[in-house]
Amino acid sequence: MPQISNKGIEMPASPIRKLTPFADQAKKDGKHIYHLNIGQPDIETPEIMLNALKGIDFKVWAYTASEGTASYRAKLAQYYNKLHYNITPTDILVTNGGSEAITIAMQSCLNPGEEIIIPEPFYANYNGFACSADIIVKPIMSYIENGFALPDIAAFEELITEKTKAIAICNPNNPTGYLYSRAELEALRDLCIKHDLYLFSDEAYREFCYDGKEFISPMHLEGLEEHVVVLDTVSKRYSACGARIGCLITKNKALYQTALKFAQARLSPSLEGQIAGEAAVDTPDSYFEAVSTEYTARRDTLVNGLNAIDGVFCPNPGGAFYVVARLPIDNSDRFCQWMLEDFSYENQTVMMAPATGFYSSENAGRNEVRMAYVLNQQDLKKALACIEEGLRVYPGTTRS
Amino acid sequence: MPQISNKGIEMPASPIRKLTPFADQAKKDGKHIYHLNIGQPDIETPEIMLNALKGIDFKVWAYTASEGTASYRAKLAQYYNKLHYNITPTDILVTNGGSEAITIAMQSCLNPGEEIIIPEPFYANYNGFACSADIIVKPIMSYIENGFALPDIAAFEELITEKTKAIAICNPNNPTGYLYSRAELEALRDLCIKHDLYLFSDEAYREFCYDGKEFISPMHLEGLEEHVVVLDTVSKRYSACGARIGCLITKNKALYQTALKFAQARLSPSLEGQIAGEAAVDTPDSYFEAVSTEYTARRDTLVNGLNAIDGVFCPNPGGAFYVVARLPIDNSDRFCQWMLEDFSYENQTVMMAPATGFYSSENAGRNEVRMAYVLNQQDLKKALACIEEGLRVYPGTTRS
Ligand SMILES: Cc1ncc(COP(=O)(O)O)c(C=O)c1O
Ligand SMILES: Cc1ncc(COP(=O)(O)O)c(C=O)c1O
Repeated sequence: MPQISNKGIEMPASPIRKLTPFADQAKKDGKHIYHLNIGQPDIETPEIMLNALKGIDFKVWAYTASEGTASYRAKLAQYYNKLHYNITPTDILVTNGGSEAITIAMQSCLNPGEEIIIPEPFYANYNGFACSADIIVKPIMSYIENGFALPDIAAFEELITEKTKAIAICNPNNPTGYLYSRAELEALRDLCIKHDLYLFSDEAYREFCYDGKEFISPMHLEGLEEHVVVLDTVSKRYSACGARIGCLITKNKALYQTALKFAQARLSPSLEGQIAGEAAVDTPDSYFEAVSTEYTARRDTLVNGLNAIDGVFCPNPGGAFYVVARLPIDNSDRFCQWMLEDFSYENQTVMMAPATGFYSSENAGRNEVRMAYVLNQQDLKKALACIEEGLRVYPGTTRS
Repeated sequence: MPQISNKGIEMPASPIRKLTPFADQAKKDGKHIYHLNIGQPDIETPEIMLNALKGIDFKVWAYTASEGTASYRAKLAQYYNKLHYNITPTDILVTNGGSEAITIAMQSCLNPGEEIIIPEPFYANYNGFACSADIIVKPIMSYIENGFALPDIAAFEELITEKTKAIAICNPNNPTGYLYSRAELEALRDLCIKHDLYLFSDEAYREFCYDGKEFISPMHLEGLEEHVVVLDTVSKRYSACGARIGCLITKNKALYQTALKFAQARLSPSLEGQIAGEAAVDTPDSYFEAVSTEYTARRDTLVNGLNAIDGVFCPNPGGAFYVVARLPIDNSDRFCQWMLEDFSYENQTVMMAPATGFYSSENAGRNEVRMAYVLNQQDLKKALACIEEGLRVYPGTTRS
């Protein structure tokens, strides 16, 4: 029997999937599970987008240009230019979700063995994409005490070596919800220019900014034109995760041409996804206002609820729909499994993602969990009651 | 300005795209171009598939399981078991087109630097996928004289080294149209077992077999269960290239679990593509019969027409919708460009793919072109007239 590849062995399995068998068993046992572990919003996709999908009228379901259709890219450019990105359609490469945009960016920018610095905790699948591309993620610690703000520039400089080729941020952040400030981005800009590094900006959660806070992209900063690679997706913006449409944006023409070669090998993004994505750009503001109101209320419910529990600390993040909270526990992997396997409260429990899966540094995140507020407030309150009770009886508590 | 990666530099550009500017210019000059260069069929997608797409009724366009939905995989298993593949849904991993299935198979089976043997000429994008995965394609020559039959097993054995991990075939073949016989596949089976190699079987054109010839898959052979990886797609079968739905099939459980990790990192194939793909399995036989009748007639028109031209030789292939023909020319890259740039016949010309792009061996395919018979017969006849006239006046002719 032929052996699988070493890369296949090293390829990280999803940190949440380890818990799936326990969740399945809990369901079999008749427990209701509040799923705070996932990034799949319950928000409805805009009707304008679904109607475009239902209204397709082609007879031949054909490939599109590898870089995406001209009309979708033109429409996307309008969308981004409303946000003052100052781009043209030829700066946009349409991809199979944000996931493929990240993979293509890594493959196009970094040689095997080269390094990308990413503030941790970070989106766990970056590890998988880096493994596929044979590149190395150098984590840089961010801390719950200041809400996971950008680490000091001095700390970045300590990590930069001959092999460093890029810095990646996710803004607003998954898993922390942190929204980077203009000052933080400007500091990153100066650093990237000084050391001639790419700056990857994963903006999957751009539309989810709260409390009137302004979203700033590296695209808004001058002098970074050749360095910035925006990685985007319709998945969260329009609650259209299953459409698999994203894009890569860069004004660096050599990089664009390189990324295009990777895109050409896989031929085309989906035709109907682009048709729907194009229609989605006309989603009325009222949709986003309603979503934002809903998420703000959910976040407040969750964050206030968590901070009211003895020994729990949860920063109040400015964006996305995740929080990372510190719990009075010995080990978040053990706790999250225990909640599914050994605990129930009124025949209910909660599934959370141990934060360990979002850190690369050993032993980091052992008393932290990530929660996605993708449930309505009533369910969030019930989930909070479960967590409170769970922490009361969990044998591995660190409460004195 | 940061440098792009070496992989990005080495990544091959599509061989046909070099001709695109000349085609664009020809169009601007008012010439009509018969496109025999592409793999995008003009055949309509089955109504049952398009209706499923128009009929979607979800409110949240959600991710599916990374391996594909349970219902699509169940339906696919039925489809394959009708063909006697003897598989279960858990042997199927749904992918973003056949392209992603190939990439995942390469990444899961081969370490960087390891080798895969592929009969040439072969589908040019294999080079791109291999480059992304940092693996090495070892071409093995097949010859137009015997219609591009499987090379001798002895020739394979000469190429096998410590680093050889897999053999890949495309059956029926793109670009040659060759349909492998049971005896050829059995010889490959024995070879793969003897040297403990994976056998990748790209079956994108399975439905396109002519003259009553039987399609044989390595899935039909005993003893190869742990070795075979089928790479498939709905693109050509249902003329649904823009749906971006394919799959990887393997009974090798360790390999399946590894491939799944790569699939999990990119989250999900498209939801609506799977819904439509599931409906497509019920496409009536009459659809395939009509398509087959049409393609057989086109192939006969093209092959007979080509062989009637002085100095041209074109084997009559058993499958797919491509032929590779030998022309009395010095250089196929130059000829194909000249046809667009310098030639017209009644204000018309033909775009073909130089076969050089499908060979890895230097100087191979210089007097061969690939043509896809994706046009109706009337247009094919006009294209043939252009080719005949073109060959008559082409300055680089090798006719005496
Ligand atoms: C930070 C971040 N980036 C990228 C993605 C990839 O999303 P998709 O491939 O659905 O566009 C996700 C999905 O959860 C994400 O959280
Ligand atoms: C031999 C072969 N394999 C795979 C593919 C990939 O097709 P897709 O990614 O559309 O499924 C093609 C497309 O032309 C092909 O010709």
